[in-house]
Amino acid sequence: MSGVRVLAIAGSLRKGSFNRKLLAIAVKLLTEQKAEVEVADLQALAMPVYDGDIEEGGFPDSVNKFRAQIAAAQALCIATPEYNHSVPGGLKNAIDWASRPPDQPLKGRAAILMGASTGHFGTVRCQLALRPTLGALGVFVLPTGVTVPYAEEAFDESGQLKDPKLLRQVSRLTEQLISFVKSYPQGL
Amino acid sequence: MSGVRVLAIAGSLRKGSFNRKLLAIAVKLLTEQKAEVEVADLQALAMPVYDGDIEEGGFPDSVNKFRAQIAAAQALCIATPEYNHSVPGGLKNAIDWASRPPDQPLKGRAAILMGASTGHFGTVRCQLALRPTLGALGVFVLPTGVTVPYAEEAFDESGQLKDPKLLRQVSRLTEQLISFVKSYPQGL
Amino acid sequence: MSGVRVLAIAGSLRKGSFNRKLLAIAVKLLTEQKAEVEVADLQALAMPVYDGDIEEGGFPDSVNKFRAQIAAAQALCIATPEYNHSVPGGLKNAIDWASRPPDQPLKGRAAILMGASTGHFGTVRCQLALRPTLGALGVFVLPTGVTVPYAEEAFDESGQLKDPKLLRQVSRLTEQLISFVKSYPQGL
Amino acid sequence: MSGVRVLAIAGSLRKGSFNRKLLAIAVKLLTEQKAEVEVADLQALAMPVYDGDIEEGGFPDSVNKFRAQIAAAQALCIATPEYNHSVPGGLKNAIDWASRPPDQPLKGRAAILMGASTGHFGTVRCQLALRPTLGALGVFVLPTGVTVPYAEEAFDESGQLKDPKLLRQVSRLTEQLISFVKSYPQGL
Repeated sequence: MSGVRVLAIAGSLRKGSFNRKLLAIAVKLLTEQKAEVEVADLQALAMPVYDGDIEEGGFPDSVNKFRAQIAAAQALCIATPEYNHSVPGGLKNAIDWASRPPDQPLKGRAAILMGASTGHFGTVRCQLALRPTLGALGVFVLPTGVTVPYAEEAFDESGQLKDPKLLRQVSRLTEQLISFVKSYPQGL
Repeated sequence: MSGVRVLAIAGSLRKGSFNRKLLAIAVKLLTEQKAEVEVADLQALAMPVYDGDIEEGGFPDSVNKFRAQIAAAQALCIATPEYNHSVPGGLKNAIDWASRPPDQPLKGRAAILMGASTGHFGTVRCQLALRPTLGALGVFVLPTGVTVPYAEEAFDESGQLKDPKLLRQVSRLTEQLISFVKSYPQGL
Repeated sequence: MSGVRVLAIAGSLRKGSFNRKLLAIAVKLLTEQKAEVEVADLQALAMPVYDGDIEEGGFPDSVNKFRAQIAAAQALCIATPEYNHSVPGGLKNAIDWASRPPDQPLKGRAAILMGASTGHFGTVRCQLALRPTLGALGVFVLPTGVTVPYAEEAFDESGQLKDPKLLRQVSRLTEQLISFVKSYPQGL
Repeated sequence: MSGVRVLAIAGSLRKGSFNRKLLAIAVKLLTEQKAEVEVADLQALAMPVYDGDIEEGGFPDSVNKFRAQIAAAQALCIATPEYNHSVPGGLKNAIDWASRPPDQPLKGRAAILMGASTGHFGTVRCQLALRPTLGALGVFVLPTGVTVPYAEEAFDESGQLKDPKLLRQVSRLTEQLISFVKSYPQGL
């Protein structure tokens, strides 16, 4: 008997990013909640910027790998920063590659969104901007997201969220994702 | 006596893209209207996906070049496709690189948006999504944009727009850009 | 054995509006598809603009009636114009009244969006703007919407859509709504 | 010699609303900064929900009054709550009435946005949603807005903002509005 298969994606590439930390917390919770979690590391994948001329020669290996990871998952857990009031170009680029035919792998996946930012809004504008894109691709994004403001102060030395309320929010959201996928295993 | 300095950017990379065609039309019109136009070619620039770990070692040359092009311009003319109801990741990525301190070069620029898509909406959702990002960076985006729907049928063999109404819209928009920059040469 | 219960709402008030026509088409299709359809007529309801001082004295009768109609339904079929690139104030106002505690009735409903406009975009921007509001209230909005552009030319004398492709889109969307509610009768 | 003419609008109707308090602070600052401020009170105006059938018989007096107030002003100062992640229906309704031909009075006005909410985000989503609507009507909305979170705790007994940083933000924003209108007295 196997758990819900979740692909975890951080929207920022740099190794020390707050959103990698936030994602690590979610991954740990998902694992404790018996999900099978795989991580798509956008820095390691190193996908190029989408270019139809590249695509004509076939998807790059990195793109094939990312698409296969999505196809193998039932759900996505995304922790992403907000760049310039919207989705980081790199994350959108990864989604753009994933969206290409044939066999667009995002269709039918569930997703949760979370994010950490150094400002007050904790990436709420990025999440607003990301929802219509994922929705258009057939992803069901759970209505609530988690936003972590003032990220420089939000994590302790071990990488844990200091604020127990925020941690509970992450835990509740990952539980909701698992429970949603169990209720609707084929997607919507 | 010199003309208004405009940087022209196509949001798609592939050589044969509809938005390169649309941009070429705008560039020709701007030139006829006595603007000095430079083109930022995102494919040739080949900027990597934004990554704080790369940035720590200094901007890549391609990023420096793109930022210098923006800094030298008074206005931007952007022709971009819509990917998944929003801004192409690659264009957003270029803007994300440009937005980094120090001396963020976008501040005070005027901009016009146009786009071509194979569907009915002609990139209107992309333009809606792009406005708050540019606005947040201190760019004044002229309120009207041009949308070219059904792009496969929109251009003739010489690359010209078949529909004279659409062509007039592009021409009016480029004129408005020039006239705006002349009225507010320091930006807003 | 009873059919899926759908509340049909036109976002414009005036009697001759294009969106009342579009809604009538959807209502007829839903009825043929064995749904039980009730109509919420925003002009007849004549809800006042939301005002906390009014609310303190209890919901107006019109608001109580609208909320009861939503509570009795499993799904919403909304045909709405676009005003100034967004949701008509009157429709948003009706939703704002419906959103108030206690027993917010929208939670768990499914919804489909359609709209007619005299311009080219057929209300796509309104639908984009309406989705996050409904999503925040626990409504599952089906990802595709129907947009009817050039509304002055779109309907024949009997009120039918002239373009058979558009009519098929409406029919497919109402079918999807019914099938969604049958699959998830308790909502998501 | 007369000051910049500003129309102040609260997006909530109830007398004790946080946004009326916030607006009062801005009005006081604008007056000290030598602007001539008039207030449009949406509760007192009591505009009906927009209805083309009403419009056909002529604008209601309340609508005529509101439109005249806008026409007489050079700039708008809007303090508005966020309802269901977007613009209050009542405020959008007022704008919809104002947007009707002939002589749409909003064109060429400058505007600043602020808002207070009881939650963490302080109406940032409302402001994001309001910008494209005002932009489409030819209003230049200054890029920065003020958001007041946790509104129950934000004001002291005299109605002043407790947090001096927030108060400075409001003061800076009203100054920017005045200085913008002085630089561009005819609008953009």
